Amino acid sequence: MYGWRAKVGVILPSLNVTMEPELYRMAPEGVTFHFTRTFLAKGTKEGLESMQQDVEPCTKMLMTAEVDLILFGCTSGSLVGGLGFDTKIINQIEDISKIKAITTSTAVVEVLKAFNFGKITIGTPYIDEVNQLEKKFLEDSGFGVIDIVGLDYTTGAQLHKEDAETVYNFVRRLKLDGADCIFLSCTDFHSLDAIRYLERDIGLPVVTSNTASMWSVLNHLKIGADMGQYGKIFSKQ
Amino acid sequence: MYGWRAKVGVILPSLNVTMEPELYRMAPEGVTFHFTRTFLAKGTKEGLESMQQDVEPCTKMLMTAEVDLILFGCTSGSLVGGLGFDTKIINQIEDISKIKAITTSTAVVEVLKAFNFGKITIGTPYIDEVNQLEKKFLEDSGFGVIDIVGLDYTTGAQLHKEDAETVYNFVRRLKLDGADCIFLSCTDFHSLDAIRYLERDIGLPVVTSNTASMWSVLNHLKIGADMGQYGKIFSKQ
Amino acid sequence: MYGWRAKVGVILPSLNVTMEPELYRMAPEGVTFHFTRTFLAKGTKEGLESMQQDVEPCTKMLMTAEVDLILFGCTSGSLVGGLGFDTKIINQIEDISKIKAITTSTAVVEVLKAFNFGKITIGTPYIDEVNQLEKKFLEDSGFGVIDIVGLDYTTGAQLHKEDAETVYNFVRRLKLDGADCIFLSCTDFHSLDAIRYLERDIGLPVVTSNTASMWSVLNHLKIGADMGQYGKIFSKQ
Amino acid sequence: MYGWRAKVGVILPSLNVTMEPELYRMAPEGVTFHFTRTFLAKGTKEGLESMQQDVEPCTKMLMTAEVDLILFGCTSGSLVGGLGFDTKIINQIEDISKIKAITTSTAVVEVLKAFNFGKITIGTPYIDEVNQLEKKFLEDSGFGVIDIVGLDYTTGAQLHKEDAETVYNFVRRLKLDGADCIFLSCTDFHSLDAIRYLERDIGLPVVTSNTASMWSVLNHLKIGADMGQYGKIFSKQ
Amino acid sequence: MYGWRAKVGVILPSLNVTMEPELYRMAPEGVTFHFTRTFLAKGTKEGLESMQQDVEPCTKMLMTAEVDLILFGCTSGSLVGGLGFDTKIINQIEDISKIKAITTSTAVVEVLKAFNFGKITIGTPYIDEVNQLEKKFLEDSGFGVIDIVGLDYTTGAQLHKEDAETVYNFVRRLKLDGADCIFLSCTDFHSLDAIRYLERDIGLPVVTSNTASMWSVLNHLKIGADMGQYGKIFSKQ
Amino acid sequence: MYGWRAKVGVILPSLNVTMEPELYRMAPEGVTFHFTRTFLAKGTKEGLESMQQDVEPCTKMLMTAEVDLILFGCTSGSLVGGLGFDTKIINQIEDISKIKAITTSTAVVEVLKAFNFGKITIGTPYIDEVNQLEKKFLEDSGFGVIDIVGLDYTTGAQLHKEDAETVYNFVRRLKLDGADCIFLSCTDFHSLDAIRYLERDIGLPVVTSNTASMWSVLNHLKIGADMGQYGKIFSKQ
Amino acid sequence: MYGWRAKVGVILPSLNVTMEPELYRMAPEGVTFHFTRTFLAKGTKEGLESMQQDVEPCTKMLMTAEVDLILFGCTSGSLVGGLGFDTKIINQIEDISKIKAITTSTAVVEVLKAFNFGKITIGTPYIDEVNQLEKKFLEDSGFGVIDIVGLDYTTGAQLHKEDAETVYNFVRRLKLDGADCIFLSCTDFHSLDAIRYLERDIGLPVVTSNTASMWSVLNHLKIGADMGQYGKIFSKQ
Amino acid sequence: MYGWRAKVGVILPSLNVTMEPELYRMAPEGVTFHFTRTFLAKGTKEGLESMQQDVEPCTKMLMTAEVDLILFGCTSGSLVGGLGFDTKIINQIEDISKIKAITTSTAVVEVLKAFNFGKITIGTPYIDEVNQLEKKFLEDSGFGVIDIVGLDYTTGAQLHKEDAETVYNFVRRLKLDGADCIFLSCTDFHSLDAIRYLERDIGLPVVTSNTASMWSVLNHLKIGADMGQYGKIFSKQ
Repeated sequence: MYGWRAKVGVILPSLNVTMEPELYRMAPEGVTFHFTRTFLAKGTKEGLESMQQDVEPCTKMLMTAEVDLILFGCTSGSLVGGLGFDTKIINQIEDISKIKAITTSTAVVEVLKAFNFGKITIGTPYIDEVNQLEKKFLEDSGFGVIDIVGLDYTTGAQLHKEDAETVYNFVRRLKLDGADCIFLSCTDFHSLDAIRYLERDIGLPVVTSNTASMWSVLNHLKIGADMGQYGKIFSKQ
Repeated sequence: MYGWRAKVGVILPSLNVTMEPELYRMAPEGVTFHFTRTFLAKGTKEGLESMQQDVEPCTKMLMTAEVDLILFGCTSGSLVGGLGFDTKIINQIEDISKIKAITTSTAVVEVLKAFNFGKITIGTPYIDEVNQLEKKFLEDSGFGVIDIVGLDYTTGAQLHKEDAETVYNFVRRLKLDGADCIFLSCTDFHSLDAIRYLERDIGLPVVTSNTASMWSVLNHLKIGADMGQYGKIFSKQ
Repeated sequence: MYGWRAKVGVILPSLNVTMEPELYRMAPEGVTFHFTRTFLAKGTKEGLESMQQDVEPCTKMLMTAEVDLILFGCTSGSLVGGLGFDTKIINQIEDISKIKAITTSTAVVEVLKAFNFGKITIGTPYIDEVNQLEKKFLEDSGFGVIDIVGLDYTTGAQLHKEDAETVYNFVRRLKLDGADCIFLSCTDFHSLDAIRYLERDIGLPVVTSNTASMWSVLNHLKIGADMGQYGKIFSKQ
Repeated sequence: MYGWRAKVGVILPSLNVTMEPELYRMAPEGVTFHFTRTFLAKGTKEGLESMQQDVEPCTKMLMTAEVDLILFGCTSGSLVGGLGFDTKIINQIEDISKIKAITTSTAVVEVLKAFNFGKITIGTPYIDEVNQLEKKFLEDSGFGVIDIVGLDYTTGAQLHKEDAETVYNFVRRLKLDGADCIFLSCTDFHSLDAIRYLERDIGLPVVTSNTASMWSVLNHLKIGADMGQYGKIFSKQ
Repeated sequence: MYGWRAKVGVILPSLNVTMEPELYRMAPEGVTFHFTRTFLAKGTKEGLESMQQDVEPCTKMLMTAEVDLILFGCTSGSLVGGLGFDTKIINQIEDISKIKAITTSTAVVEVLKAFNFGKITIGTPYIDEVNQLEKKFLEDSGFGVIDIVGLDYTTGAQLHKEDAETVYNFVRRLKLDGADCIFLSCTDFHSLDAIRYLERDIGLPVVTSNTASMWSVLNHLKIGADMGQYGKIFSKQ
Repeated sequence: MYGWRAKVGVILPSLNVTMEPELYRMAPEGVTFHFTRTFLAKGTKEGLESMQQDVEPCTKMLMTAEVDLILFGCTSGSLVGGLGFDTKIINQIEDISKIKAITTSTAVVEVLKAFNFGKITIGTPYIDEVNQLEKKFLEDSGFGVIDIVGLDYTTGAQLHKEDAETVYNFVRRLKLDGADCIFLSCTDFHSLDAIRYLERDIGLPVVTSNTASMWSVLNHLKIGADMGQYGKIFSKQ
Repeated sequence: MYGWRAKVGVILPSLNVTMEPELYRMAPEGVTFHFTRTFLAKGTKEGLESMQQDVEPCTKMLMTAEVDLILFGCTSGSLVGGLGFDTKIINQIEDISKIKAITTSTAVVEVLKAFNFGKITIGTPYIDEVNQLEKKFLEDSGFGVIDIVGLDYTTGAQLHKEDAETVYNFVRRLKLDGADCIFLSCTDFHSLDAIRYLERDIGLPVVTSNTASMWSVLNHLKIGADMGQYGKIFSKQ
Repeated sequence: MYGWRAKVGVILPSLNVTMEPELYRMAPEGVTFHFTRTFLAKGTKEGLESMQQDVEPCTKMLMTAEVDLILFGCTSGSLVGGLGFDTKIINQIEDISKIKAITTSTAVVEVLKAFNFGKITIGTPYIDEVNQLEKKFLEDSGFGVIDIVGLDYTTGAQLHKEDAETVYNFVRRLKLDGADCIFLSCTDFHSLDAIRYLERDIGLPVVTSNTASMWSVLNHLKIGADMGQYGKIFSKQ
């Protein structure tokens, strides 16, 4: 049996091609991830909102796989409706399935609180409209946003063409003074390989949407793992 | 970018929890897999047939991820309608998406032909009704079936609780005289770890639904890889 | 000479097929184990009591091998007669052989005392009748038993078919609040590979019949070893 | 489950402290060995003959462990009665247990025949009386004995104090001209570590009682393994 | 002393930031590279021609370093003047320094001839004007050019931003039928990491300006090295 | 892209054949070095002074490579004009290029100050005339010079023929009482491999011209790296 | 050059075959040992005294090798004349050669003092006559001898046939209560491999004649090394 | 016991500091070397001849160490008297000790004959007088000498200061046309590390005095070893 410690169901936007390989790279022994998709053709406010329609059928799919937890794996898609929007998605999944659920936005908030990261600088691949939604969501959740800069991408082709080298240089140009940590938003943003260089050179912890999701998943399932190579939040765990 | 050599879309039955970890274990550098599910609650003829309904929406999901090939990742689900059934699924996917498609059944037939395995012994987790459909499909495709034995499972819980040790002993009890190879059917059957022990102790090549799928995917995409640990079909490639 | 640091004689129940590979996996360099069997066809109270008859011939066998210590390697078989039953077996072996002897039950008590584990939760493969004997033996020895749950097995085939994955999930369902450690009873219970995952995920030390036996053997022979991978009791040694 | 490829029962002389660690060093993955003892206090003709009395109870012990094959693990003890003596022991075990049985002497003959080693030089730890029995047994089995030399030992203490270095030098003094291979007799003779140096320096294959036993066990169970480090008979397999 | 097997002087275009790290990654033990620059601000025909002016001072610089060979490390810059242009540069360097000289263009021709690669497909980062010069130079040197495609770059920033992933996909789109090998031109083109994936997936040998330069340098200095990871031309050496 | 964390331009004396391999051995991932030369035929005061003439053209070369920092990589050449001479070179480079610049002498002073090494013993390959210039420069910069000894070399052939073994023994003969550290001057002096033996055997930190240059480069660019094998200054960083 | 950190001359008894391999196993990088022999046919008081005659020619031999230090490598041979005898040998060597000299006895005393080992238990291969000389020498040097036991050997054949296993068991039978350390005397006694097992199982530091010699050699030459595997005296260094 | 496969006595010139570390680097497991010295202060004809006086006492020393073979470890010292001189030394040693003896010159001749190296080029550290003696000895032994060049050294300090890098470059300048192999003479010449680079770059087998000595020692003792890293003569063995 593969997922003998835990099986995790993931609902992810259909255009995302980064979250699956990143979750499998980080997966502790005996933990497996099982995916199904909600339709998303473009990363606009409108597109993100429409993803809600697929939550019910996706949940029913994952119930047959008898997963131990369901992750709604999209950052902007779980905050596009403002504060409380993530809880609505969680309730919907839990009501249908009776299985514990989280969203990536919820995971990010959990991590920031667990480590007392009150002030954050944010790098995203988003357009400004989405950045403003994210800024408001995090401020309403009680965090100070020092800086938020996006790459102005909407299509999948734009989103996932990036690599660690571009992300590294993009982040080094952000405003960092006064920040407690750097948050790199978007589960379709290839930022995992930039973390250790950024943490070493800048000296601040770096959290990404995928590492926050993984941290929260393991925390809820009470599973321990040595994952310090994916950022300081895992060595403090 | 993760899938820089190729991105492979996979449509898999909703209860399957084995194919995702096995494809990611075998994945060559620069090749990624992206999943979406068709509803399947039980591995009966009826259930398998009903999976057809989700092929269209699944295909549209994977189109947004701009994958290079779509694999319908279910053995019995792609042969339940008899000879030609797999081609029908392939045509449907290709018509909608203009992306090359294969099914696991097609992949199995391709592998058996490529290596001239004319006579095969088959181990499955299936109930007899499904075994008979598979036997007929392969005989109609021109192969001799020496023996076919199933574990009589239908639910996900039964299917994926197995491990290499059980599979090893199950296979050693099959009728093998005259067989050119052993085929272990079902993409939700944890047989990958048993391959090298079976090949060493029995002396016959062992093909599973997941290794056949991987072989065919790489063959169509013209991607080479050193994967001899997953069976003789990869060292002959 | 193989056992140049020490040669350890082991009397084990005839149906046991787990203790030999586990002791050889854990054996420090220069320490060897030498086995002989007492007849046991079923793990019932009656069967366990009857094992006593073979202690004398077994001891005489091991005397010719000039071992440095004799371990009576059965948990339930060394406590089936209640408090003091293990001492009776030890005295019998020592009287015949003039060689230091211990039993697995004695070893468990020694470990629990050495680490001040006053309250314990117990997982076993036993039937309830045997669980109750074990609970009483440990309570009479001064320990509090938070929970004891068995898998209700009696035959060898049932006992040794388990693996780390099943044991892990079985243990995660036990009542753990207030426990100082988890004790997994039975030298024929394949629990060694579950220890490090359980300790990491639950946070409590995990002791098994075989690790307790090994700890006590090394302690009496004054032999040190780096065996932290087999549980916290070895890293504290 | 430990012995998932095969469980092997072994009946060994009570004074033997070499066969257990050597079988566990060589054991392929998924193959376990389970031991019980026949009484032997001294390696004399008389002592060896008396071991027969324990074959029946030993067999019954191993039946409860549900082993796949039983090995009577003593060279001189399985040939002390001359040609056919080993077959008598095998028949006795098989009649009681309905489990396939072999003896070390049978294994040696099987190996010598399989590799066409018609003429052999033999090194033993035995007294001359036992050497003569072995010489006659092998000659009656159709082999030419170029030379046979013993170390004149009878007690356990003498037998197992040796190490690879002494064995190496002892063997280099034997008469080797015309021999097809060197056979080092006795399952309690620590000769395993000398094999590769002897094979490299002398250029002849070296077979020991324990490597012959292992070869025959794996051959009967149809289990393959990479064990070339234990002698040329394993690289030719 | 670092360059005890050989010290190699390299004259490279001032904007090039790829050749130095690639030569140092490939450098065999005891071989060092020493660099000096000719002015080049843009990869146009005009710019390339102007590099000639710095050959004399560059050569005099490298003479003081007592190098064993001087490489003019620019492909287009050593063929911009047509057939024989590379020889003119070589003569100039050798006349001044009395040290053996080669150019990258010369090296490419040497490699293609040594391996009998008569027909080649070429990928470059160049603008079409430069591609046509390269095509003519190679055709005049006796080779057939199946296809030549450029990325239309002139500035340094464009040239060296590429990575193995982009190069891999760029090359897979070239016309390859009938080609004996693929040649990736430009010493400032980060193509080294794409070689083994391209050779494995396409099945043709891949030569780059930097691997050709290295091959020729080692060949002239009669230095052997195991460098198969950098392409088939090194495993055939 | 190779130099994705940073690209460093280096202006080095034309006869130097040590700095290039030493910088590439130490280079952290994603940091590349790009070289161009100033003419120097002999390590005399006169020769060193004349190197100034090439600073302007060298700077213009490196500007086209779009480097992030320019290092004037010569110790004596950046102090030959006395206190302030290094600043003059820095200003000249920065005025032309608008790129941050340092010299090796500046780097040495930065390191000595950062670690509070007030009193130093110096080993050089120089002639006495150059040693006296260096002594004065460092004293004028506020350091006490316990001892300074040179090997009396001027030509490139003399300078770079040395290896770690000679350097080790040369240093062990210096006056060390009262020194806070040992400084091995000259970027063409093969001293890198002697550092860890000298630090271990003598107990004082050892700084070389090349390690000081690297330390300062990384410090200005805010790049972290694990380089403890190259001396204590890197483990304290 | 091999001995670039230091070359050590060793005068050893002609029958000794242990010191050369043990010094070369322990030798730090860049430290070499060079041997010459004094005649000794038997380890008796008489034999040991006669070794003095060869000190002068041996010293002259080693002078031509330009060693940095001369070690008289025999324990009993450097104390057979009582307190001050070792100093006499040292003076003789130093007077002839002007090279720093030590003896093994001197080294033992240096180590015991450096680590404040006031009370020691001694194991030797010697006859009682030699043991009494050693006991008196160490008591006169200010140490308390808890126990001294010898194996009663005089010939080379007896001395060097031992191995770590025998030494381990011999030492475990010594009287250890109240001892600060265990000293295993004789440079021809194969005790090096027993050190780490004895230190781990008994808990006391173990010093041998060869580790004491090495410790003193490195200490006088001021050479550091990581040699913790050869005993606690090296990890405290 | 260290030298359990064989103990080799070595008589070496007193100034030699290379042969001991080189023999210990190459020594196969279980083979030890034991040294004693003959007086040699300078590598002149006179000095070499005088070494004969110490052969008798050296032999008697090594007899007490019970070595299995005695090597007179000096090339020029065993041929200084012309053809047959080496045999005289061998006879002298064998007559005294009854132990098999060889000299380095004999070993060189044995190797050249075994591999049919009829024509050789020779590099030495010797003065011309000694080179001429060597040339004549080898010609009289039936070999053609293509070239012989010396470094003109006589003192120990000159001889052993060399390293692989110098030796490599010295050899590349020798006349090699028509040679079957390169022979690097002198057991005090640090040439071992140059062998594999020379063999790779030049393509001819390289034999040194120390590898020839080792080859002959192992050949006479019938000991096999994997030593291909020390030259082609060991991979052909």
